[in-house]
Amino acid sequence: MVGRDDIDAAAQRLSGHVVRTPVATLSGFGLRHPVEMKLEQLQHTGTFKARGAFNTLLAVDVPPAGVVAASGGNHGAAAAFAARALGHPAHIFVPEMAGPSKIALIRQTGAALRVVQGEYATALEAARAYEAESGAMQIHAYDAPLTVAGQGTLIREWEEQGLQADTVLIAVGGGGLIAGAMAWLGTRRKVVAVEPRTSCALNAALAAGNPVDVEVSGVAANALGARRIGDICFGLARQTGVESVLVEDGAITAAQHALWRTCRQLVEPAGATALAALTSGAYVPAEGEKVAVLVCGANIAPDPFAA
Amino acid sequence: MVGRDDIDAAAQRLSGHVVRTPVATLSGFGLRHPVEMKLEQLQHTGTFKARGAFNTLLAVDVPPAGVVAASGGNHGAAAAFAARALGHPAHIFVPEMAGPSKIALIRQTGAALRVVQGEYATALEAARAYEAESGAMQIHAYDAPLTVAGQGTLIREWEEQGLQADTVLIAVGGGGLIAGAMAWLGTRRKVVAVEPRTSCALNAALAAGNPVDVEVSGVAANALGARRIGDICFGLARQTGVESVLVEDGAITAAQHALWRTCRQLVEPAGATALAALTSGAYVPAEGEKVAVLVCGANIAPDPFAA
Repeated sequence: MVGRDDIDAAAQRLSGHVVRTPVATLSGFGLRHPVEMKLEQLQHTGTFKARGAFNTLLAVDVPPAGVVAASGGNHGAAAAFAARALGHPAHIFVPEMAGPSKIALIRQTGAALRVVQGEYATALEAARAYEAESGAMQIHAYDAPLTVAGQGTLIREWEEQGLQADTVLIAVGGGGLIAGAMAWLGTRRKVVAVEPRTSCALNAALAAGNPVDVEVSGVAANALGARRIGDICFGLARQTGVESVLVEDGAITAAQHALWRTCRQLVEPAGATALAALTSGAYVPAEGEKVAVLVCGANIAPDPFAA
Repeated sequence: MVGRDDIDAAAQRLSGHVVRTPVATLSGFGLRHPVEMKLEQLQHTGTFKARGAFNTLLAVDVPPAGVVAASGGNHGAAAAFAARALGHPAHIFVPEMAGPSKIALIRQTGAALRVVQGEYATALEAARAYEAESGAMQIHAYDAPLTVAGQGTLIREWEEQGLQADTVLIAVGGGGLIAGAMAWLGTRRKVVAVEPRTSCALNAALAAGNPVDVEVSGVAANALGARRIGDICFGLARQTGVESVLVEDGAITAAQHALWRTCRQLVEPAGATALAALTSGAYVPAEGEKVAVLVCGANIAPDPFAA
């Protein structure tokens, strides 16, 4: 399990290595109420994943063979970035559906990159095989205590920046980000887990009573497409009684457009998924309930400046 | 002239009407030093122009004929947005070079829109003719005390948010934004005026000793393409000894790319012009000099979600 002490320690480690991302209270998006937002897409490599990656590499002795990571794309980019910043070699395994923007982002870091057929789970198998054969250290994308503690620094930082909300909406793939939030917040604020109906590993696990495999597809699959929720996340979700809501792919796309129209933030589908719960009405705040949305990633395809 | 009292009054008026835009200290952009940034592109209609427009409409009795504005596009969108928010009719005049994104943005507000042949100065003539014939109230894009005082709330807000920099770099078109900054800061911090070489009304005025007409063209002309610097800006520039630097169009485009790559902010050329002074080396900070860049607009063409 991951606790507040682990997140405090992570925050200390990360100081100077990650971006203290900005927050804003914004009106618009077709909503009647303002929304507090944390703009984590300004983080290194465009997503929160840099927090978990740096925390892991700073907490352990990295072997000479360096770092290996499997990823839908964002975690791989973050692991490669952190490895380069700290002087370690990196091998990154991604599925084809990572797409050209994320693949280009990883290549820019100079990491060794292997694109595998299939989905995230297949990339993870290949990464594990490489780990066994090379002695490189694996950074798990979401289901490892150091990864979760790193992601937990995000909500800790948001509270330092004056978070007011009663309720925080967070997109869920494998559950590393929301696990960090639940570990930090406990039940002090309500956490709403937002998943695409097309990739809903946490929702399915809560319904089944334990983590189960789900099919993954849809517009956000290359960021949220974990086939099975992480055990750390699942345990914290049960413990804190997180609320799980699902959104349609069309609602995610509409929320992407709303983010651009209202506040000129261009994000990938996963980055707009938490907002989609509000803009689609999948989550309706009670009268007077103050809500916050974590905008978590912006590695959109096609890249607006792709060569 | 515009003073700090005018800006205090504007800030009070604007409360609840404009976005308190986020700030961040970011590293990257190919620079060796961090840069404080204010992300004013999250403002209503995507630029700082909403501040001056709201300040004007809230300070005066708007006639029944409503509001008229001439604009390269951004001021028109802001004036139309503010007019609609406050219940006034609006007529907006833009040159063709405003481009489809800005024209679409103005149309969305429901304002009456006239697209005229030529550049900003031609649109201003048409707007003045409409003002005389209709009795509508003109909101000048940059050379009016209420406009300047409204824009001045931006740097006032940034100081409230903890601005540390010795030096603030600001893009200049007609000079409303930088005039507000100079009026607020006086000589307490160094202000650097950044203009494209292809649209450099302030630089030319400082060289000539008084405002003179310049030719305007280049990638940022539909935001910074004023033919002559505003008198308010020119007076403050002389009084405070502002430093004027010029950047090439290619440097502006490179800074746009750097903003996307480093922190996933997609902005229009004008919005990247201040940063371009650093990334191109047109302005080189002294050892230990802390710098801040105002990111002022994001109404990029083509709109990434254009239908």
